[in-house]
Amino acid sequence: MSKTVELARHLETLKINDMYKNDFYWTWDKTDDEIDAVFTVADALRDLRERNKSTRVFDSGLGISIFRDNSTRTRFSFASACNLLGLEVQDLDEKTSQIAHGETVRETANMVSFMADVIGIRDDMFIGEGHKYQKTFMDAVKEGYRDGVLEQQPTLVNLQCDVDHPTQCMADMLHVIHHFGGVENLKGKKVAMTWAYSPSYGKPLSVPQGVIGLFTRFGMDVVLAHPEGYEVMPEIEEIAKKNAEATGGSYYKTNSMAEAFKDADIVYPKSWAPFAAMEERTKLYQQGDKAGIDALEKELLARMAGQPTYTFEVIATEKKPEKRSYAGLTMELMEDYLAIWENELADAARAKFAEMKAKHEKKELRFSLIKRWFLELFPKFDVKKAKKEIREKKFKDAKAPYKVVKVSVAVPQISAK
Amino acid sequence: MSKTVELARHLETLKINDMYKNDFYWTWDKTDDEIDAVFTVADALRDLRERNKSTRVFDSGLGISIFRDNSTRTRFSFASACNLLGLEVQDLDEKTSQIAHGETVRETANMVSFMADVIGIRDDMFIGEGHKYQKTFMDAVKEGYRDGVLEQQPTLVNLQCDVDHPTQCMADMLHVIHHFGGVENLKGKKVAMTWAYSPSYGKPLSVPQGVIGLFTRFGMDVVLAHPEGYEVMPEIEEIAKKNAEATGGSYYKTNSMAEAFKDADIVYPKSWAPFAAMEERTKLYQQGDKAGIDALEKELLARMAGQPTYTFEVIATEKKPEKRSYAGLTMELMEDYLAIWENELADAARAKFAEMKAKHEKKELRFSLIKRWFLELFPKFDVKKAKKEIREKKFKDAKAPYKVVKVSVAVPQISAK
Amino acid sequence: MSKTVELARHLETLKINDMYKNDFYWTWDKTDDEIDAVFTVADALRDLRERNKSTRVFDSGLGISIFRDNSTRTRFSFASACNLLGLEVQDLDEKTSQIAHGETVRETANMVSFMADVIGIRDDMFIGEGHKYQKTFMDAVKEGYRDGVLEQQPTLVNLQCDVDHPTQCMADMLHVIHHFGGVENLKGKKVAMTWAYSPSYGKPLSVPQGVIGLFTRFGMDVVLAHPEGYEVMPEIEEIAKKNAEATGGSYYKTNSMAEAFKDADIVYPKSWAPFAAMEERTKLYQQGDKAGIDALEKELLARMAGQPTYTFEVIATEKKPEKRSYAGLTMELMEDYLAIWENELADAARAKFAEMKAKHEKKELRFSLIKRWFLELFPKFDVKKAKKEIREKKFKDAKAPYKVVKVSVAVPQISAK
Repeated sequence: MSKTVELARHLETLKINDMYKNDFYWTWDKTDDEIDAVFTVADALRDLRERNKSTRVFDSGLGISIFRDNSTRTRFSFASACNLLGLEVQDLDEKTSQIAHGETVRETANMVSFMADVIGIRDDMFIGEGHKYQKTFMDAVKEGYRDGVLEQQPTLVNLQCDVDHPTQCMADMLHVIHHFGGVENLKGKKVAMTWAYSPSYGKPLSVPQGVIGLFTRFGMDVVLAHPEGYEVMPEIEEIAKKNAEATGGSYYKTNSMAEAFKDADIVYPKSWAPFAAMEERTKLYQQGDKAGIDALEKELLARMAGQPTYTFEVIATEKKPEKRSYAGLTMELMEDYLAIWENELADAARAKFAEMKAKHEKKELRFSLIKRWFLELFPKFDVKKAKKEIREKKFKDAKAPYKVVKVSVAVPQISAK
Repeated sequence: MSKTVELARHLETLKINDMYKNDFYWTWDKTDDEIDAVFTVADALRDLRERNKSTRVFDSGLGISIFRDNSTRTRFSFASACNLLGLEVQDLDEKTSQIAHGETVRETANMVSFMADVIGIRDDMFIGEGHKYQKTFMDAVKEGYRDGVLEQQPTLVNLQCDVDHPTQCMADMLHVIHHFGGVENLKGKKVAMTWAYSPSYGKPLSVPQGVIGLFTRFGMDVVLAHPEGYEVMPEIEEIAKKNAEATGGSYYKTNSMAEAFKDADIVYPKSWAPFAAMEERTKLYQQGDKAGIDALEKELLARMAGQPTYTFEVIATEKKPEKRSYAGLTMELMEDYLAIWENELADAARAKFAEMKAKHEKKELRFSLIKRWFLELFPKFDVKKAKKEIREKKFKDAKAPYKVVKVSVAVPQISAK
Repeated sequence: MSKTVELARHLETLKINDMYKNDFYWTWDKTDDEIDAVFTVADALRDLRERNKSTRVFDSGLGISIFRDNSTRTRFSFASACNLLGLEVQDLDEKTSQIAHGETVRETANMVSFMADVIGIRDDMFIGEGHKYQKTFMDAVKEGYRDGVLEQQPTLVNLQCDVDHPTQCMADMLHVIHHFGGVENLKGKKVAMTWAYSPSYGKPLSVPQGVIGLFTRFGMDVVLAHPEGYEVMPEIEEIAKKNAEATGGSYYKTNSMAEAFKDADIVYPKSWAPFAAMEERTKLYQQGDKAGIDALEKELLARMAGQPTYTFEVIATEKKPEKRSYAGLTMELMEDYLAIWENELADAARAKFAEMKAKHEKKELRFSLIKRWFLELFPKFDVKKAKKEIREKKFKDAKAPYKVVKVSVAVPQISAK
C-alpha cells in the first residue's frame, strides 16, 4: 500500500465537509481535523511527486494572485502549488490595471474571477486592513456566484494578512512534525518565537502571531520573546493561551532573549515592526497620507539602525547532549577549534568569532557572551575531545548532529542589559 | 441531446469558412452568420463548462497579449479565455522589453509569435492609430507565416482599438439576447447608448461605436445620447444607420438624456472623451509630444470636474408596468418609502435622495428631476400601495421585478438646460 | 520513417550522458556530440510541430526566468520553448520581489525552485559578473537538491551572460546549417562577425564572443571586424583560434570592415560597447555606484552619436557571381538603376542613395564609397545588362538571387580612414 493510499484512508476519518467552498483566512478558524487534513494532503502530494505521479486535478482554471506587498517566497510557492494542481497563475497587478482609475474592490473581485478556482491574497501592511480587504473581496465573489455572475465559487488562500500567515506557518509546522517524527513527539518541546533585527522596513506581525496561534495547538511550550514595544495583537495571544490550556502545553511572553533560547528545541527568529508604529501606519493609510507612511518607514529604519545589536548564530540542536564539560574553554581553544572546522558555515563562524574577539579586546564584549555563542554553535562541545581533535586536525562537521534552523540572525543586546 | 450538440448542429448551417485564419478587428467586418457563430460557440463553451466537460482544444500554444492602455477586465477575460481553451498567456510588456530600444513593430510581431495561436491587442487611445497598429502587427505576422518564419499563422482578437471593442460589445449583446430570451424577441426594443460622466482620463470612443455598430443589426431601436462635442466617428454612425435600415430597426442621435432614457428597455451609460480632444491627442501623439498629451489629459480632467452633474441611478426594467399612478407623490412620501426599502442599493439611494433634497431646498434642483429619478428607480411605483407599505413597513426589494444594469453613474445636467 | 525517428536514431549514436542534470553556460563547455544533440533535438521538435504532434514532455513544472537586462526576443523564445515542452513560465522580477530587501542570491535560488525544471537567466551587463551570478545561483540549487530541500534538480539555460549567448548563437548556427544544406557544406565558408553602430546603450560582448566561439567549430573562416577599442575578451579569441586549428578553418581579427565583408558568405553585424567602457561599468557596479553607471551610459550614447557613420546596407549573397563588369558605372547609372528596382528594400535604398549623393555633392563623401555600397547591394551588377534593363524598365528583385541577412545597419567610416 503506497503512502498516498494510507494517507487517503486517514483523510476519510476526518470531518472536513465544511472545507470545500470555504476560505482559508486563519488557522484558528479551522478545526483540528481540518488542519490535519491540510497536512495529510500535503504529504500525499509530496509522496505522489516523489514517485513521479501526476498531481494535476484541474484541466483548466486560474489561480489569481494579488500581492499588495512585496513577495518572492510566497509568490513562487503559490505559483508552484497552482502548477502542481494544474492551475495557471494570473497576477492582478494593481499598477497595470484600471483599479487605480476608481473601480472598486467588489467590482474587481468578480471581473477577474470568471475562471478562478483559487484566489491568493497578500495584504499585510496595515493592522485591521489586510483581513478586511480579503473579506470584502471574497464576499463579493460569493455574491457573484450566488447571483449567477460566476459559474464557480473560487476559494481564498490567505497569503498573509495583518493577522496570520497561515501557509507559511503550516509549512513550518509540518516541517517540525516531520523533523521530530510525528505529532506525538511534540508534547513538551520548547519553541522560541523570537524577534530579530532586520535592516529593512517595518514588517508585519502576522508571522509571530501565526506561529503562536498554531504551534500552541500541539502541546508544545511556546515562548514569544521580543523587546518592549514590539508586542503582538493581544487577541492572538489569547488564542495562544487557550490553545495551550486545551492541549497541555504552555504559552508565555518574555523580553529576555536568553530566557527564550534556553533549552529551546526550536527557535524561530523573525523581524517585525513595533506595534505602535503599525498602528500609526494604519492611521496614515486610512487618511490616505502616503507621504506620512514613507516618512514613518524611514524613521523606523533609522530607529533600527541606532539599536545596539550583535549577530547571534542561532542553532537548534536535534538532541540536547547529556552532559557537557567545558571547563577550561578559552578564547585560544575556541579559535583553534574553529580553525579546523570544515563545513559550509565554518567561514562565517570564523569571521564572526574574529569580530567578537576584536570587540572583546576593546572591552566591548564580555567573554561570557562569546562563550555562549560558541556553545550554542557546538552543543556537544567537550574540552578534552576538542584538544584531541585539534591535535589530530580531523574535526569535521559530520561528527556534530546539529541541525541549523536559521543562521546569521542579528538580535539586539536585550539579554545583555 | 445536449445543448452543445444542438448548438453544433446549428453551427453546421452557418457559412463560416472564412473565419479560420482571419483576424477579428470589427464586428461590421463579419457577416451575420459569423457573428451568429461567435455567439453559438460561446453558448456551447458555457454549456460544456457548466456540465464540467473539458474545453481544451490546444495541447500547447501561447496567447500573446499586448495592452498599450490599462486594462483589468479585458486582461482577465483574455487570460480566462486562453486558459479555457488550453493556451498560456504571455504578455508583451513594452516597458520591460527592448522595443523602447528602437525595434520596430514588424520585427517584434514575428519574434514574439513563434508559438502564438492568438494575439490580443488593446490600442485605443489615439484616433486612427490603434487599428493601424493592430493591422501593421498582423500584416507582419502574415508575411512571416508566408515566408516560413512562423510555423503557424496566429489570429488577432481586437481587445479594443480606437474604432471598436468587439469582445465587450459581443459579450453585452449575447447577454441581452439571453436576457430577452432570444434574438427573435429583440425587434423593437429600445437601447439607449448614453454618455456618462467619469472622474478619469479621456476614454476612447470604441465602446459607444461598437454598441451602435452591433446592436443595430438586431432590429432594435438604438439611440445615442451625449452632450454636444462628444460626437463619435461619423463613419460608424453611417454603419449604424445602414444596419438599422436593413433590419427594420432605427438609429438616431440626441443631446437629451431624458429623451434617450424614455421607455428604454436597455440603457448603456459609458464615459468617453470629446471628439476634438481625441483628435488633438492623436496629433500630439504623431508629433511624439508626450508632455502635450499629459497636459491635455489634465485639462480634460479639469474640464470634467467643472461640469455641473447629478448622479443618476440608471435602472432598466425587465417589463414596463401596464399603468402607473403617481399623482400625489411628494418629497415626504419618497423619503418614507426609501426609508423602509431594504436591499443592497437602499443605502446609496437614500444618500442620493438626501443630497438631492438638500439641493432642492437651496433651489438648485427642480422637484421634477427628483421625481423622475425616483420613478426610474421604482418603475412600478404606486402611491396608494406605497402608503400601505409604509404603514405596514414591509416593503422589500423582492416585490420589485427590476434588474439593475448599471448603478451610480453620474451624467451632466444636459437634460435640465 | 519519419524525420523524427531518423533524428532519434542519430541521437542514439551520440555520447550525451553528461548532459542530463548539467547546466548550459557556454557552447565551448560542450562536446561536439553535445552540440550535435542540441541541433538534432531542435530539428526533431520542429518536425513534430510541423506534423502537429504533441511535444509536451512535462505534466507539470515551472520554467523560471530571470532577466537582469531587458529582453523581448529571448523572453518570448524562452516562453515559447517552455510552452512547447509543457512547462509554465514564472518570471522572477527583482523589482516586485523581496530581493531588494537584502535576501541573497543563494537563498532566493532555492526558494523559487520548488517546481522548477529549468531556470533561464540573462545577466549580461557587467564583465565577470553575469556568469558569476548564474554560477552562484545554480550552485545553491544543486546544494539544495543534495540536501533534500529541492525534490528535483533544475537545469540552467544561459539566456545571455557577459561571456556567451549560447541559445541565440546556436539558433543562428542551425539556421546557417539548414541554409547551406548541412554541416558538410560549411567548410571554407567565410563568416564576418562585424561591429555595427546602434543608437542605444552599451551592449554586451556576448554575441560576438558566442559567434566566434561556436562558428569556428565548423571549419569556417571566421573574421571579427570592429573599430579599435571594441575588442572582445581575449580568452574567447583563444578558443576561436583553437577551434579553427582543430577543424581546418581560420579565425582572424581586423579593423577594416571592407576586408571583413569581402567575399563573405555570411555577415553578422551587431553592436557592442567598447571593452574599456565595459570594464569601467563593471568597476562602478562592484562599487555599487548606480549614478556612475547611468553617467557612463549617457557618455557612451554621446560618444556613439558623435562618430562619423554612414548607413551600410548589408547583403549576403547565396552565391558569388563568377565575374562582374562595372566599368563605366556612374552616379547617373546607379540612380536610374535604383529607380526601376522594385522590392521592399528599394525605397530605403533610393533614400540612402539620395542622401549619399547630396553628401557627395558637398564633397563630404567619396564616389568610391558610394560605388562600393552600390556593388555590395547588387553583387551581380553588370553595366551592359543594367542599361538594357533600364531601357526596358523591367528590372525586378526576382532576378537577383541575393538573400538579405540584415539590413539598415549603420557602421562608422572606419574603412574610409
